[in-house]
Amino acid sequence: MARARIHNQFVSLDGFSAGDHVTFDRPIGDAGALFSWFDGRVIEGVHRVADPVTLDRALFSMWGQGIGAEIMGRRKFGPQSGPWPDDGWRGWWGDEPPFKTPCFILTHHPREPMVFANGTSFHFIDADPAEALRRASEAADGRDVRIGGGPSTIRQFLRADLVDFMHVVVVPITLGRGVHLWDDVVGIEDRFTIESVSSSSGLTHQLWNRKQ
Amino acid sequence: MARARIHNQFVSLDGFSAGDHVTFDRPIGDAGALFSWFDGRVIEGVHRVADPVTLDRALFSMWGQGIGAEIMGRRKFGPQSGPWPDDGWRGWWGDEPPFKTPCFILTHHPREPMVFANGTSFHFIDADPAEALRRASEAADGRDVRIGGGPSTIRQFLRADLVDFMHVVVVPITLGRGVHLWDDVVGIEDRFTIESVSSSSGLTHQLWNRKQ
Repeated sequence: MARARIHNQFVSLDGFSAGDHVTFDRPIGDAGALFSWFDGRVIEGVHRVADPVTLDRALFSMWGQGIGAEIMGRRKFGPQSGPWPDDGWRGWWGDEPPFKTPCFILTHHPREPMVFANGTSFHFIDADPAEALRRASEAADGRDVRIGGGPSTIRQFLRADLVDFMHVVVVPITLGRGVHLWDDVVGIEDRFTIESVSSSSGLTHQLWNRKQ
Repeated sequence: MARARIHNQFVSLDGFSAGDHVTFDRPIGDAGALFSWFDGRVIEGVHRVADPVTLDRALFSMWGQGIGAEIMGRRKFGPQSGPWPDDGWRGWWGDEPPFKTPCFILTHHPREPMVFANGTSFHFIDADPAEALRRASEAADGRDVRIGGGPSTIRQFLRADLVDFMHVVVVPITLGRGVHLWDDVVGIEDRFTIESVSSSSGLTHQLWNRKQ
């Protein structure tokens, strides 16, 4: 069975991982500051880094390594809710979504898949976490599955004890509002070994590995 | 131009990076303890790790990312010296060398290349560091070049100011003898920014990036 991995899960000191007020113009709502440390270019490996290979970037670059499929919540794909409007929306990322694998989008409104030339495809499924992971594992063809967020999707998988590895990045800011990462998952730390390391940028990286 | 990168350069507290007394049976001589923290399986990415993804392993796994060629000293290839004996030696690694790219072996005794089915090839060249890097960069075809050691080869490239990135791993042991990493490179730290981080295993990882 493929492992289920979470990468680059940013969280503020007060526990928020996403903003309120997501709109078409503002995909991360009020929480932009959470991602100000993040260099999206490094997600496929250190060789894509033009600038110094810092500890932060070395760890961010685990994101794409050996991943064969992603599972994401509907809000990561777009700001719509309810039945899908006929608006031509194909995600936030234009013609080159960074995933380059099948992606399974959890929604109560399944629809036809979307396929992109760069290897990305979006599959809209109405499934609980275990069933979604089963389908994504099958699609991953021996590679791992990334649980891509947002926070409420992460929590669903944590509560179902389906997460094997999680890279949490504690960002030294307070947000005061938004979508909380740690709601309703009290005590999950008991199921993991957790290694924490701080970088010179002020970030703290936590590597959560499920206990064997 | 490809970047020249050094990875997983282990060094003892007293500055030794390899052992004396290298023989056919003992490729790292007396310095085996230096590598006792190292899990060679992770060198192609975190997805190859069967066990917990620790900070150590996450950083070790940078080794293979985006590398298109390696340069190594002759002692890394084998224990022989002088003209090559007709002994059928094809390196320490059997039929599956882990490199999977062209490798340029610095020697005063050039010979015909060796080619393996898994993408590895060994090219024996008599060249100074700049010329070796030029040839390896060409072979790397847009990817980076790894300077693979041993310590005296690393020092040659450091002295010639040809190293863009170096991951040094300080191992909390003393060896008392062996091949020193830091001989004749006094003051090189001025040319780099250096980020140090210690892991829960006792290792200290240093990321050396050449100043822009």
